[in-house]
Amino acid sequence: MTSTQPARGTRDFLPDELRRRQYVIDVVRDVYRRYGFEPLETPAFENIDTLTGKYGDEGGKLIFKILRRGEHEASGTADLALRYDLTVPLARVVAQYQSELPKFFKRYQIQPVWRADRPARGRYREFYQCDIDAIGSTSLVVEADLLAAVSDVLLALGFTDFAIRLNHRQALAAMLEAVGIPAALHGEALVALDKLDKIGIDGVSAELRSRGVDEAAASSALAFLSGTTGPDAGADAVLEQLRVLVEGREAGIAAVADLRTIVDLLAGTAAAGRVRIDPSLARGLSYYTGAIMEVAVPDLAGSLGGGGRYDNLIGMFLGRDVPACGFSLGLERIIVVMTERKMFPPDLARGAADVMIAFLDDAGRPAALTLAADLRRAGVAVDIYPEASRKFDKPLKYAASRHVRLLAILGPDELTRGDVALKDLDTRAQQNVPRDRIVDVIANAIESGEAGK
Amino acid sequence: MTSTQPARGTRDFLPDELRRRQYVIDVVRDVYRRYGFEPLETPAFENIDTLTGKYGDEGGKLIFKILRRGEHEASGTADLALRYDLTVPLARVVAQYQSELPKFFKRYQIQPVWRADRPARGRYREFYQCDIDAIGSTSLVVEADLLAAVSDVLLALGFTDFAIRLNHRQALAAMLEAVGIPAALHGEALVALDKLDKIGIDGVSAELRSRGVDEAAASSALAFLSGTTGPDAGADAVLEQLRVLVEGREAGIAAVADLRTIVDLLAGTAAAGRVRIDPSLARGLSYYTGAIMEVAVPDLAGSLGGGGRYDNLIGMFLGRDVPACGFSLGLERIIVVMTERKMFPPDLARGAADVMIAFLDDAGRPAALTLAADLRRAGVAVDIYPEASRKFDKPLKYAASRHVRLLAILGPDELTRGDVALKDLDTRAQQNVPRDRIVDVIANAIESGEAGK
Repeated sequence: MTSTQPARGTRDFLPDELRRRQYVIDVVRDVYRRYGFEPLETPAFENIDTLTGKYGDEGGKLIFKILRRGEHEASGTADLALRYDLTVPLARVVAQYQSELPKFFKRYQIQPVWRADRPARGRYREFYQCDIDAIGSTSLVVEADLLAAVSDVLLALGFTDFAIRLNHRQALAAMLEAVGIPAALHGEALVALDKLDKIGIDGVSAELRSRGVDEAAASSALAFLSGTTGPDAGADAVLEQLRVLVEGREAGIAAVADLRTIVDLLAGTAAAGRVRIDPSLARGLSYYTGAIMEVAVPDLAGSLGGGGRYDNLIGMFLGRDVPACGFSLGLERIIVVMTERKMFPPDLARGAADVMIAFLDDAGRPAALTLAADLRRAGVAVDIYPEASRKFDKPLKYAASRHVRLLAILGPDELTRGDVALKDLDTRAQQNVPRDRIVDVIANAIESGEAGK
Repeated sequence: MTSTQPARGTRDFLPDELRRRQYVIDVVRDVYRRYGFEPLETPAFENIDTLTGKYGDEGGKLIFKILRRGEHEASGTADLALRYDLTVPLARVVAQYQSELPKFFKRYQIQPVWRADRPARGRYREFYQCDIDAIGSTSLVVEADLLAAVSDVLLALGFTDFAIRLNHRQALAAMLEAVGIPAALHGEALVALDKLDKIGIDGVSAELRSRGVDEAAASSALAFLSGTTGPDAGADAVLEQLRVLVEGREAGIAAVADLRTIVDLLAGTAAAGRVRIDPSLARGLSYYTGAIMEVAVPDLAGSLGGGGRYDNLIGMFLGRDVPACGFSLGLERIIVVMTERKMFPPDLARGAADVMIAFLDDAGRPAALTLAADLRRAGVAVDIYPEASRKFDKPLKYAASRHVRLLAILGPDELTRGDVALKDLDTRAQQNVPRDRIVDVIANAIESGEAGK
């Protein structure tokens, strides 16, 4: 007997869950569209050479590879591979369509990616990424515009308590230099510092020492960070402390000035008042060249999304640097948090239809289909109980199990009289409504029901 | 140098093309939702056993298989395979979630499938399928509801000239028996008759003979069909001719009665007046058990979609028959026809934004971001030219190349005066508008522009 489970680490999205996912994606698309981001989609699989060598040794092992076909299948080798992220395909698109794409290409892309990770709670082998990237400009307006867009998405979804953590790759480097950590140990130090939220000052201190950072440098770094991080550290104060710390280091001074500019540019946007400068933020990723950003809510360990400027990655297929700044929203995490917090509109739980139409014998079928057509034309979502049932109770029970609010019944008596029996499953009220008024009555009932929620 | 082309037979969807695709998908989703169909999505890949043996010898060769990973990669064998259609995953879902799914499960599913076909004009290795299926009832209300839904989709997309071809598996069988073609040759005969549109009566006659049908039976069949097919054959007349032909054959009589009922049920729906009974329609598919349906427009060879009743397929993983009726819209074909006929709303060609905001020096950046925020809050799609440009011409040229209609410029003079220079790229009119009136002026300009289209 074949298993009927989805493949390991993948999910079937049944209607209730998928309505929630579609709701989030629709909100995201709508906000990003208002910000001038354009949609892009790339194929599920790429030529294997396009992906090979792009994700490091560990990442490379997680790529799903597709077997050659026909006479080549027996070779046991692969020529194609499933998309592992949305960034490499974007880099390929930027190289392939140079002449067609605008000078400043702002795209959003919401598609699944596949990674052969060991499945775990909240970790899947097929999951959606939701990326925006703005390509072609080094202007800090880009960083500000991205952060404003992400903030507007979160606000539109109903998040009121998110914060933006902001740092800069060159400020990080200058800070580490200033406290006396040599450049060769910056990578090691960042791995340790990235854990400040999780393991605290003592934990990070021990880890810094074990990674070769001497005690004086480690305690200087932690003294600085403990004075500048945390929810109460105002952006102005932290920027001033950073400015003093990196004094004399040119790249660091420029980075602090850039952070200052980004904060100022956000003042009139949806991100106003959300920004915390966090000098410890590194996001573990080596490819950032400028701003580093992250969005978080208090009740979630980890972030709802992150990004930054990465000016030497998108040109990988062009052989030259192309400026770029991007942000990736954690769609799966957003859905988890919104579900836990019950942030979805109650309408989504209404199920498939606003109204179910039932008929009691075959003579009622044409009237049922005509009534359905009239209601649907008025924008009402209508399901039809497809089978004749002598009594009300079958369709009534079924409508209740489907969370449908209104049941419209066309029995022989109703057809003779030219009316419809309308039952409200919420209030249990029942009335007979003349056929020529039923569409208005139902439309009004739905509207007032929604208003009352 | 790595190629930057998408893999053979696949496509990158750049923004203009993708906006058209999203528009179609949104319309389809909205109509199907109003018909009480619920969304379903399944993973891109399935355990290979789920797909093996489901698509015949030819289909089986076209399945993309995924190589085992890690230590098993060297075996050269596959454990997963990419989705080949949406029907087998649906059958798996119906078996897996029996207790959670409603008794009458109506789902729509719009997802890509992958087939290793030889790529050709209009034939891709990754393409979308767009299916509705209603599971759990043998009522003819289901057939009528599906055809009404498909008709409403096509009407909502702007198709005014489509026709529904309708036939019935048992009517076909009875017709072939009645003209003297033995049951053993029905499969051969249907292959030939399916080509009536393409190769005409003489062609089909020759093919029937070559497939072993004797001359008398072949000419009876063609005589009957030539009197009942064609755009002018009214449903009533054809049903009557069919009824006479199949007289005495019980299954055939019932099938003709079912066709009659479906036509009658459609009278009050969006499909009214669209139905042609076509006794030659077979759709080459052996799995239909009842109604066979197809939708076509005059200027397209082939169909925009098709479907029918197939009562013994969805239960494949359950080991028992489950009634089902489905319809698959040819999304890719619909998009081709709509593009050729220029049926897309002109707004879609507007590009990424309604307005582009430009600033002339860095001091204008905060004002640009604030204006963008105000406009976006009013629902306007806004792009920002990210770099300071001393003169108007760079952003002006760029806005024109991006098909943006309005350019809002914040130069030093405008900032001093507290206004915004607004240029309409369609009319070339330019005016300075006070900052506190600019959102209204732009919102009105966009609204009237849309109304004027």
